[in-house]
Amino acid sequence: MFEMRSIGCVRSRYQDTKSVPKGLGAKHEAEGVLEILPEFEEGLADIEGFSHLFVLWVFDRSEGFALLGTPPSDDRPHGVFATRSPKRPNPIGLTVVQLLRRDGRRLHVRGVDMLDGTPILDIKPYLSSPDPQMLRRGWLAEAEARSKDGR
Amino acid sequence: MFEMRSIGCVRSRYQDTKSVPKGLGAKHEAEGVLEILPEFEEGLADIEGFSHLFVLWVFDRSEGFALLGTPPSDDRPHGVFATRSPKRPNPIGLTVVQLLRRDGRRLHVRGVDMLDGTPILDIKPYLSSPDPQMLRRGWLAEAEARSKDGR
Repeated sequence: MFEMRSIGCVRSRYQDTKSVPKGLGAKHEAEGVLEILPEFEEGLADIEGFSHLFVLWVFDRSEGFALLGTPPSDDRPHGVFATRSPKRPNPIGLTVVQLLRRDGRRLHVRGVDMLDGTPILDIKPYLSSPDPQMLRRGWLAEAEARSKDGR
Repeated sequence: MFEMRSIGCVRSRYQDTKSVPKGLGAKHEAEGVLEILPEFEEGLADIEGFSHLFVLWVFDRSEGFALLGTPPSDDRPHGVFATRSPKRPNPIGLTVVQLLRRDGRRLHVRGVDMLDGTPILDIKPYLSSPDPQMLRRGWLAEAEARSKDGR
């Protein structure tokens, strides 16, 4: 077992899971704040040079896990490691946010899909993306195609 | 505190940190295997439809953390949250790999930068990238520019 601690928390407009946009075509444009604990502030040095960040966080209001589940974007079940389900063996969430500005130990960001008060485990700079020509999105692309066809 | 468990481990050609390519221009083309524990295999259903995966893992051979550090790609110190340093408050690593094929509970992937035996915490499908036009890479872009100028 590995013990992880909170390095701060998310300030977001979302107070409960129902208010977070989900499903096909959901946009994550919400602004929010990553509030880092004072003892970790020094670790933010030079972060303002990056436009995008990975945020690793805890699904702290989710309990237990399910290896198969039907996501909001489809009507068919898929393996948990092929979805973003909160019911994971390790309840870690991953979100790419755009860094708007830094105000001391508060990072103002766009693209928040976490609930208000969500514990943050780590922040990493976003450095590069896979070649878009190479990207395949499995069941999600199929669900999008079915949705467009009205199936 | 949050308790996390291993869901499997990485099989890689890298036996020690010195053998992992690092620094400016390092390529991560190494192939390896993500070996998932039998009790989590069902969670891999439909993963083979995705070309790329996020792998969350533990820097299990790193001890302690430093809020400031000089990465292999620069000669200047930066905050830990602006680097991929293993010496993090929560020693979680994040790697995007290309899924080559699935063989039961073994995922053959390209782009491994983890050591052999590294514990895996989670696997998520890679769905989209930020607009490349919007991407800024802070100190890393500056270090690359200095390196090209021979400074």
